[in-house]
Amino acid sequence: MIREAVIMAAGLGTRLKERTTFMPKGFLRLGELPIVEWSVQKLIAAGIERIIIGTGHCSEWYEELAKKYPLIDLVYNKDYAATGSMGTLLLCAEKLRAAAALILESDLIYDAAGLFVLINDPRPNVILASGATNSGDEVYLEADSRRLLLGNSKKKAELGSVYAELVGISKLEKDTLDAMSAYCRAHAEDQPTMEYEAAMSALSRAAVEGKTGKKFAIGIRKIEYYAWREIDDESHYEMARREIYPRILENEEIRAVKREVLLNPGPATTSDSVKYAQVAADICPREKEFGEVMEWICGELSDMVGGRDRIKTVLFGASGTAADEVMISSCVGEGKLLIIDNGAYGERFGKIASSYSLPHEVYKSSGQVLPDTGAIKKRLLDGGFTHLALVYHETTTGLLNPVPELCRFSREHNITTIVDAVSAFAAIPIDMEQDCIDFMASTSNKNIQGMAGTAMVFCRKEALEKIKSYPMRSYYLNLWDQYSHFEKTGQTRFTPPVQTLYALRQAIIEAKTETIAKRYERYSACWKILVRAVRELKLSMLLPEEAQSKLITAIVEPDSPAYSFNELHDRGREQGFTIYPGKLSDAATFRIANIGDIRESEMERFTVFLAEYMKGLH
Amino acid sequence: MIREAVIMAAGLGTRLKERTTFMPKGFLRLGELPIVEWSVQKLIAAGIERIIIGTGHCSEWYEELAKKYPLIDLVYNKDYAATGSMGTLLLCAEKLRAAAALILESDLIYDAAGLFVLINDPRPNVILASGATNSGDEVYLEADSRRLLLGNSKKKAELGSVYAELVGISKLEKDTLDAMSAYCRAHAEDQPTMEYEAAMSALSRAAVEGKTGKKFAIGIRKIEYYAWREIDDESHYEMARREIYPRILENEEIRAVKREVLLNPGPATTSDSVKYAQVAADICPREKEFGEVMEWICGELSDMVGGRDRIKTVLFGASGTAADEVMISSCVGEGKLLIIDNGAYGERFGKIASSYSLPHEVYKSSGQVLPDTGAIKKRLLDGGFTHLALVYHETTTGLLNPVPELCRFSREHNITTIVDAVSAFAAIPIDMEQDCIDFMASTSNKNIQGMAGTAMVFCRKEALEKIKSYPMRSYYLNLWDQYSHFEKTGQTRFTPPVQTLYALRQAIIEAKTETIAKRYERYSACWKILVRAVRELKLSMLLPEEAQSKLITAIVEPDSPAYSFNELHDRGREQGFTIYPGKLSDAATFRIANIGDIRESEMERFTVFLAEYMKGLH
Repeated sequence: MIREAVIMAAGLGTRLKERTTFMPKGFLRLGELPIVEWSVQKLIAAGIERIIIGTGHCSEWYEELAKKYPLIDLVYNKDYAATGSMGTLLLCAEKLRAAAALILESDLIYDAAGLFVLINDPRPNVILASGATNSGDEVYLEADSRRLLLGNSKKKAELGSVYAELVGISKLEKDTLDAMSAYCRAHAEDQPTMEYEAAMSALSRAAVEGKTGKKFAIGIRKIEYYAWREIDDESHYEMARREIYPRILENEEIRAVKREVLLNPGPATTSDSVKYAQVAADICPREKEFGEVMEWICGELSDMVGGRDRIKTVLFGASGTAADEVMISSCVGEGKLLIIDNGAYGERFGKIASSYSLPHEVYKSSGQVLPDTGAIKKRLLDGGFTHLALVYHETTTGLLNPVPELCRFSREHNITTIVDAVSAFAAIPIDMEQDCIDFMASTSNKNIQGMAGTAMVFCRKEALEKIKSYPMRSYYLNLWDQYSHFEKTGQTRFTPPVQTLYALRQAIIEAKTETIAKRYERYSACWKILVRAVRELKLSMLLPEEAQSKLITAIVEPDSPAYSFNELHDRGREQGFTIYPGKLSDAATFRIANIGDIRESEMERFTVFLAEYMKGLH
Repeated sequence: MIREAVIMAAGLGTRLKERTTFMPKGFLRLGELPIVEWSVQKLIAAGIERIIIGTGHCSEWYEELAKKYPLIDLVYNKDYAATGSMGTLLLCAEKLRAAAALILESDLIYDAAGLFVLINDPRPNVILASGATNSGDEVYLEADSRRLLLGNSKKKAELGSVYAELVGISKLEKDTLDAMSAYCRAHAEDQPTMEYEAAMSALSRAAVEGKTGKKFAIGIRKIEYYAWREIDDESHYEMARREIYPRILENEEIRAVKREVLLNPGPATTSDSVKYAQVAADICPREKEFGEVMEWICGELSDMVGGRDRIKTVLFGASGTAADEVMISSCVGEGKLLIIDNGAYGERFGKIASSYSLPHEVYKSSGQVLPDTGAIKKRLLDGGFTHLALVYHETTTGLLNPVPELCRFSREHNITTIVDAVSAFAAIPIDMEQDCIDFMASTSNKNIQGMAGTAMVFCRKEALEKIKSYPMRSYYLNLWDQYSHFEKTGQTRFTPPVQTLYALRQAIIEAKTETIAKRYERYSACWKILVRAVRELKLSMLLPEEAQSKLITAIVEPDSPAYSFNELHDRGREQGFTIYPGKLSDAATFRIANIGDIRESEMERFTVFLAEYMKGLH
């Protein structure tokens, strides 16, 4: 798995004249984005977690870009005018944490398929190449019979033979980069402006000729019809705009998955890149490499709910309900549990506790108003409860329970708190430490925008340590064993859902790029569009606004004999929208969720559809 | 989701002269396969469950093909010489079960991306088109401004304008096909040799002009640079061979996932098409359409273990161990359980029973020899046991337990049998009725060759009915509720792992194509290659041959101080092989599994690697 990338972006771009006097080449635009930002987005979509950009000329442009993309780390090559690209690459290579990385030039437009091909090439060191481009600025490559790099030149005559043209995207191991850096340093005097391709060629040829380690031989992966262009001068820019850019867009459209806007309360709509993250090489999940992926996932998820120093994330191959069962069966010990039930998910806590015959009491409250926190606090103390379980965001109605208030009170009275945050996590900002939540469950397929199949339990470290000796009531759904086994071995106890975890990893990369705060803003903006339409249509909402999560809205069905949920649903699906019925026995509602990878324009389109349907009822 | 396809293959192919006098056009070869077989394989990889081929000229060739691919249904157009392609399509359309299908001509070579594009196009009726091919036999398409089909012709002058060229692959709804059929029948006299594209054009134009239902308008999906060729004459064949075929191969290579041969005992190696099956439109799993997919999966899996009439398959989002826990916690009731423990998985049964405090006894037996069935039978009767739990294939050592013998005995004595067949199912032929197995667990990621994340419990109907009123010991892992809820609603109780189920569906299509019997032959052939090498290397196997499953082989580590499992493992991984340590405390072994989508040539290559490593120890 390739997790890091380097973009070399220090150059002056002099051949583009006044266009790049005060701007790096990477900020030339095609379509709506600077070409380097397009490249950054492709790298993110390809599962890159961290992008190191080597800057020089007009580096302030990259400083702005890095603010927008938190996964970018900048390295400034102060000698950019005096060194070649290898001088920049050398500085970037020092910052790499991974054992291998993608290396790109900043002035490229390219079909993202090239990244996929390099990532999936079995060879550890490999550079991307194409058939003839006739660009007028070709870097030709010489290869041996095994497609190993022997040399490069802009002049065919300087090479023994021409196998392909260099694209400017490579996959290289850290060791190889270090060897290239050493070569560059050794030639600091005679070749002060060394380009990185010269270092690659020299190293690879030496490896092929047995003059250095065999492992430094660099493979060439040629795609005859590859759509790409380096933009070095005005003619390239024009060629890119006219011919290559449309071809790349067409190729990307070919890979686009049919868009379905899920307005049901999860699984939520996912990005295409999350979908494609599942298409990865098979791996035995007990491999160290996969353990590191899971560790990364757990650390990042912990950071989203209070920080990895204080919160441990434990993963299970299962649904969100299973995570609830993990908490109830593993965290109560010999105690006595009070469950707040103001919807289907609170009720479910009760069913789980019953199936394990745990001492518990269910506190019922209407799903249509905020629960009476005073009464709950009194009951907690009067009943001598040791544990409190409640739902953060009751998906049944869209009601947001006063979790921080009740959990802070519980902490003061030494009561352990268990929270179902299945549809709250990664949208509502939650800090488990500050909110005094001990255990909290969620799932991969709602606001974090991954695929269904992975459940997670977030645990405050101190609370987790306490359950160590609690009885094991379920073998598969046991929290302590699942946690401690992974801590000890870097492996899950049982086979994890590998591909779902890859999708979750991608979803986390994208959540970090968007940020949870901005995600909640986007969700809220979609919700506002919905609510405005609901009001205009004179429909009413089940909950008062102050109790609403802004994630799921329960709308009271119109009082028209012509109304049919099934018809509304079916017509919606024809237009790419999926809606969901209500779940309450005492109120006829339908529900619209605005979570997942949905856009405001899509919610606008949905409200137009909804208005058409509702107006047709009269 | 598109689940069916039609290939029109009745034509005479007269322009190919003597090549097709005694052979249908589809059997022209490019590379190793007839072009129509290449097409069939692409359709299978795209998730098509059933292919209807309309035959005519030399139909016996297709009869042979249908023997090789059980998903092919043939429809013979006896009037093929007198009707056009519409006459054949009409007969095929009658046989469709699905609401929409892919419709293809038999004489095409094409990039499979075209199928993906049609499947993912939001429009229900859409035909694939390309930019200019200059093939000399173009069918030009006229479109309105919304890219709706208005007409087609081989003569540009007959059209108002030319938008694109027809490829010969379409996605059409059954309703649309029926309307085309009606149009064809209405013109039986004046246009007896009607081509299907003429019927499409006439219907779509009428829809655009408001003369028939709007829904019959057919969209055009144009891919400017699409790689395809219809082969109607010698020059096309030559062009296909020289130019198009290599381009298609290159495009397919670009999408190929890095090959890792997993020789660990699961998750096993999967095909690329199983991986790509996860890339599908988002769907709420409570939609009827998804319920039908799950129902199809359950029915097909039941058929693999005895038939859907007698066996019910119940799916869980979890690992194989969870399925074991489902059985132990749900199926024992008030009874008393004897567990055979001759490996880690038998031992696990015991741990699960303990966590639920179920009355049980563990019968220990060495993992290195077949257990003493006489003693077990005696213990079953003497101990008054009501339930027997055992592992079909003990992954720890590769030992195949005598399940049919012990289960038949149990049936005679009214003892319910619970079998972990996690690594036996879909390789070892199992008929639960014949073998007297009541409940049996497996998982999506071993021999069925899907992705990890779905567990299944197979249940004999009569045995399942009995557990109805048993106590619910786990909420999530409850068999009866999971079963009865799905039966009642067509929905799972909790969010299922949607993409893993799509992968499982694809894996089932591929297992049916290969057949389980042939799969076991392939596995056995790989095993033989391994065993031959093990013997040649003078290594010994832990088990006597008669106890071996031929699925997993435990090899005793060589008695050399230079041997290191970690080194063997790491060097193997560099070459794309993943191996796995032993799991026994009393014998130092490493294990080689030969399950999953692996090829004999790969096992050969592995044995060469193993020999090199072992020889290096001396």
